[in-house]
Amino acid sequence: MRLYTYPGAPSPQRVEWLLVEKGIEMPMEKVDLTQGEHLRPEFRAKSPNADVPTLALDDGTFISQVPAICLYLEDRFPEPPLYGQSPEDRARVIMWDHLGYINGFRAVAEVLRNSSRAMQGRPLVGPHNYDQIPALVDRGRQRVRNFFNDFNGRLAQSDYLAGDFFSMADITGYVMCNFARWIKEQPGEEHVHLRAWQDKISQRPAVEKVIQRR
Amino acid sequence: MRLYTYPGAPSPQRVEWLLVEKGIEMPMEKVDLTQGEHLRPEFRAKSPNADVPTLALDDGTFISQVPAICLYLEDRFPEPPLYGQSPEDRARVIMWDHLGYINGFRAVAEVLRNSSRAMQGRPLVGPHNYDQIPALVDRGRQRVRNFFNDFNGRLAQSDYLAGDFFSMADITGYVMCNFARWIKEQPGEEHVHLRAWQDKISQRPAVEKVIQRR
Repeated sequence: MRLYTYPGAPSPQRVEWLLVEKGIEMPMEKVDLTQGEHLRPEFRAKSPNADVPTLALDDGTFISQVPAICLYLEDRFPEPPLYGQSPEDRARVIMWDHLGYINGFRAVAEVLRNSSRAMQGRPLVGPHNYDQIPALVDRGRQRVRNFFNDFNGRLAQSDYLAGDFFSMADITGYVMCNFARWIKEQPGEEHVHLRAWQDKISQRPAVEKVIQRR
Repeated sequence: MRLYTYPGAPSPQRVEWLLVEKGIEMPMEKVDLTQGEHLRPEFRAKSPNADVPTLALDDGTFISQVPAICLYLEDRFPEPPLYGQSPEDRARVIMWDHLGYINGFRAVAEVLRNSSRAMQGRPLVGPHNYDQIPALVDRGRQRVRNFFNDFNGRLAQSDYLAGDFFSMADITGYVMCNFARWIKEQPGEEHVHLRAWQDKISQRPAVEKVIQRR
């Protein structure tokens, strides 16, 4: 296997963090997003949505999309589990991972990609260009703040996002909170549970390797 | 188990279709979206993103988000498989299901939810209201057309979206193409492969039960 990635970008960080937690080592190939390497035909032949991370399998095929890559690696390398111990656990992990992505991750991306001059024409991940929409910048910030409130409420009920165990959902949530620094949004004093959870997660050795090396 | 659903809405259709393919029967409870029942505190206590479908498990907990529900039901009721026969198959299904959702489903929703008077304040699924953004209507239509081109290209290479077998990715893609009728977008004459695939899928008995009964 080989991972096509771009170190420091938030979606690849979700997969790289899983690799560190599981002690998986594999060759990594940098796709330089700043040079548009992801949009070149040779990479699009591997990754139909022109995005990293993309995983090359040993049978010569390719998988993109973080949930697909992470569930595949969980199947192949079950220990330590990052989707809990039962089908019910796994369902909850996928649910909270998805909510972190849809309501958190994409909200930060909405602000960044619709405001940055460097991302003109690129408000959405994928092969197609669109015009930036300035109204999405304000809406994205509202969404990020609502996300902090919602996830703070969840963490008032539960030690980790999917229950009483660390999981892929926490990886996505934590990476999202870091990604929010790029747009200068952070959980506030009122988000007591979210901040306590961030402190707890930040002590995992993987964080230093994946996040703090940026 | 019990499924909270709203018949005829596209996200619930993805799960209801899986149930029909697998021959699973369970009680269904209608959450009337037109009356705002999904936004009431009693339902939000079950479904944190205030959305259907939501699945009540026998242990008293709840799972929302289509990928979480469908992978859970695949675990519990493996036959007939809707995620293929191997971890590699499953990864490809999750990948194409995710792309159908992100680039297809959400693009149609973007048009509908930012233009409909009945959806003022509701451009996004979830508990929070936001203003509609008219610029998203045109962008959403561009995205839907790009989706038809992209998936037509994929289906030029492959009998079904994830490979040579029918899967959850086809369910999501087909439901998306039907959902696009709501905004009067459909694959064109040039989308030969996509239309041949639609014809093939439309002959499955589940389609009549889930889609055509609307």
